[in-house]
Amino acid sequence: MVEPLKTRKRDDITQWYNEVLVASEAMDFSGVKGFPVYRPYGYFMWEVMQKALDEEIKKRNVKNAYFPLLIPESTLSKEKEHIKGFNPEVAWVTLGGEKQLEEKLAIRPTSETIMYESYSKWIKSYRDLPILINQWNNVVRWETKETRLLLRGREVLWQEGHCAFETEKEAESNAREMGLVYKKIMEEVLAVPVLFGKKSESEKFAGAVSTYTVEAILPNNFMSQAGTSHYLGENFARPFDIKYLDRDNKWRFVQQTSWGMAMRALGIMIMVYGDDKGLVLPPAVAPIQVVIIPIIKGGDSEKLLEYVKKVEKLLVGEGIRVLLDDRIEYSPGWKFNEYDLKGVPIKLEIGERELASGSVTLKFRWSGAKKTIKLNSLQSLKDVLKSIQKDMLEASKKASEDRIVQIKDREGFVSALKGEKNVAKAAWCGRIECEEEIKQATGATSRLILLDKEKLISDVCVFCGRKAENNAVFAKSY
Amino acid sequence: MVEPLKTRKRDDITQWYNEVLVASEAMDFSGVKGFPVYRPYGYFMWEVMQKALDEEIKKRNVKNAYFPLLIPESTLSKEKEHIKGFNPEVAWVTLGGEKQLEEKLAIRPTSETIMYESYSKWIKSYRDLPILINQWNNVVRWETKETRLLLRGREVLWQEGHCAFETEKEAESNAREMGLVYKKIMEEVLAVPVLFGKKSESEKFAGAVSTYTVEAILPNNFMSQAGTSHYLGENFARPFDIKYLDRDNKWRFVQQTSWGMAMRALGIMIMVYGDDKGLVLPPAVAPIQVVIIPIIKGGDSEKLLEYVKKVEKLLVGEGIRVLLDDRIEYSPGWKFNEYDLKGVPIKLEIGERELASGSVTLKFRWSGAKKTIKLNSLQSLKDVLKSIQKDMLEASKKASEDRIVQIKDREGFVSALKGEKNVAKAAWCGRIECEEEIKQATGATSRLILLDKEKLISDVCVFCGRKAENNAVFAKSY
Repeated sequence: MVEPLKTRKRDDITQWYNEVLVASEAMDFSGVKGFPVYRPYGYFMWEVMQKALDEEIKKRNVKNAYFPLLIPESTLSKEKEHIKGFNPEVAWVTLGGEKQLEEKLAIRPTSETIMYESYSKWIKSYRDLPILINQWNNVVRWETKETRLLLRGREVLWQEGHCAFETEKEAESNAREMGLVYKKIMEEVLAVPVLFGKKSESEKFAGAVSTYTVEAILPNNFMSQAGTSHYLGENFARPFDIKYLDRDNKWRFVQQTSWGMAMRALGIMIMVYGDDKGLVLPPAVAPIQVVIIPIIKGGDSEKLLEYVKKVEKLLVGEGIRVLLDDRIEYSPGWKFNEYDLKGVPIKLEIGERELASGSVTLKFRWSGAKKTIKLNSLQSLKDVLKSIQKDMLEASKKASEDRIVQIKDREGFVSALKGEKNVAKAAWCGRIECEEEIKQATGATSRLILLDKEKLISDVCVFCGRKAENNAVFAKSY
Repeated sequence: MVEPLKTRKRDDITQWYNEVLVASEAMDFSGVKGFPVYRPYGYFMWEVMQKALDEEIKKRNVKNAYFPLLIPESTLSKEKEHIKGFNPEVAWVTLGGEKQLEEKLAIRPTSETIMYESYSKWIKSYRDLPILINQWNNVVRWETKETRLLLRGREVLWQEGHCAFETEKEAESNAREMGLVYKKIMEEVLAVPVLFGKKSESEKFAGAVSTYTVEAILPNNFMSQAGTSHYLGENFARPFDIKYLDRDNKWRFVQQTSWGMAMRALGIMIMVYGDDKGLVLPPAVAPIQVVIIPIIKGGDSEKLLEYVKKVEKLLVGEGIRVLLDDRIEYSPGWKFNEYDLKGVPIKLEIGERELASGSVTLKFRWSGAKKTIKLNSLQSLKDVLKSIQKDMLEASKKASEDRIVQIKDREGFVSALKGEKNVAKAAWCGRIECEEEIKQATGATSRLILLDKEKLISDVCVFCGRKAENNAVFAKSY
């Protein structure tokens, strides 16, 4: 029997989340805290997401490259503002073989410093611009908080894009565009609706002029960041001396961006969709989109298996990721539970009845619906998978919107945010001090500042009563 | 003007090699010894090779996964034989943030130990076998010898496959098959002919029962290993306790393999084909397969550019990786040198004469040939690229074979191998002591033992005169 999950999602979402990832064989723990194992079932989803994102990146003429894993302390220290946020969280290599190193080396927590040393060498004139480079790699941050599979680990798989331009306008527009690419990946590949906006002064990346973010609302009303894109201005160009001779033969600093999306996006998707039976995967990212389970109860099993293989061949021909599980050592009931745990979008049952009527029975993981269709309409399954994907996104979008409460008064704002109950949208002054006080009072922070040109919810800040500057969304961060 | 390379290949191949990689913008040095930068031009070639190899791997039902970067000392030490060869070459993390770690962590030099801890957890019965897992990652070996771009670095990008089977037969056949896959990638993607065989007792991977290898002959008659595949037997299964309940309900150790191919394959290709003008790239791996260079000398430049764009569109439509360089700030002569340096297989010149006659002029990087063809035969360029690829492999195969001298007498053998002059093929006893003596006498070692069932070259070992066991190829290792 497939062991049922011990924890129900509504009872303890964090515990349930760990259980479902391990039981479904998507992930596993290793002997090193914060360094999980991505098993083939989980890694496949990363490969799907990576391929889709890589295509978007390349479409924009950004090229992949690879920079060193280790960064000398002196290089990492160059950007004072940068290092401030990171220094305590770095893993240091101090021994090479049996010898003490003269200078200790950090495992990259992100690659700004080491990449920009090269940029400084490579860029001489406006003819060398723009530089549009991305890398897919692993980074290490020495998290001291509790680590969580995919969502907060010490080793993280991600991509980091680093571009340099002549003008502020190009750089700003690149940062914004890549934020929107992340939104597209979340929604179209992972079927997870996200909000797009800017980070507040206290929440933005320390080295950035401004940070764009895409954020998803989790079932527990916490919000989780799925990707960020930074307009860096000249903040790195100055300490790393990245200058170019412009079209008027004057030296100028380049305008830079950096943007990154990590495996945590998958963790968000799993948290949004999973249930007490296991994973619930959107078809676009599911390693197995359709599993065929023959129900053999004596009878002419040879004829049934022939029929089943015909169905398999049809679906493979349609380009569907299909698995035929005809193992005899496991019962159909065991298999139903197993593929529910693994979140397979469609289970396709074939027994004597289906054989006799030339049909198959479909069971849908996400909606729970069941339907019998004729063999000759099987090629429509590709469209069915697409519409499941669309329906999942639409339903989650609605659920997400329902979670956001628009609030105008301080008391309502504070009580809404306390106790993990709500996501609050409100007019806000945007001040660092005000955000600090909100955090003290509620435990929540601004997750993003909305960019839509919509009318201010109020003329005054919901919390401090000063002049409101924008509409922002507040929640606890997961 | 494009700076010509300072060093000629025949004068100092190592120096020339570094220069050509940096000047062509394929690679660059970073501030950390042995940790190079893979620039977009070089990384693209890795992506091509990676895609081709990944497809071969997946065709064989092996799935990608990802295991931790850091390995606790105690885990790494478990396989005594394994650690012996590696211990002095490992980079150790001893500090997390500002805290000393209780146990130091090695950056993986390879992942046998950390992966097999998981395998031991996952494998319980024959139903869990085979396990077929590959990972694409970065590994670090603290080389103390001089490092070389791509060929010997401290950080290496590669793939490592790790499979576990029920029987020795399956494992042996997997190890051999993956060796042959590496041969295919070298020959079909990189156009580099390789020899396939087994490593001798002293040259094999310490933890392996037997090691298959593919080896290329470099222009300086050194040989270089392009990929290896190990049959591990139970050498890891025993210390890591990877047991399964077999079909007769008895506990058995699994039979394992591991196999890896790294970026060094690209280094070999560059060393084999490059010349004093720069890289010479096989079309399959070239980031730019065809560069179009318009020759504008007054005249109706608008009409010429229109013609040029038409040609570009045609080639893009054919799926060719084409670059139109219509920059006016660089002369055609500068561009010829630049794309020769970058090793672009075909330069396509278009001037007034080509415009008038509805043709284009092709210059071939590898053969040096020049040819004018009509516009309407331009779609054949795809086939032309394929035949360049084929011709390069065939020509190199012949050159490689010519380098191997078959020798029967000890004196001839020793003098052939001394002074980097020859690659020697000879009958050999295969003994560790004999190999050690050959090394002392010549500086060369056995690169591989040939598997072909061909007749022994002699009944007695070319060096020690004892009974010959196999035919082997001897050379210095690069």
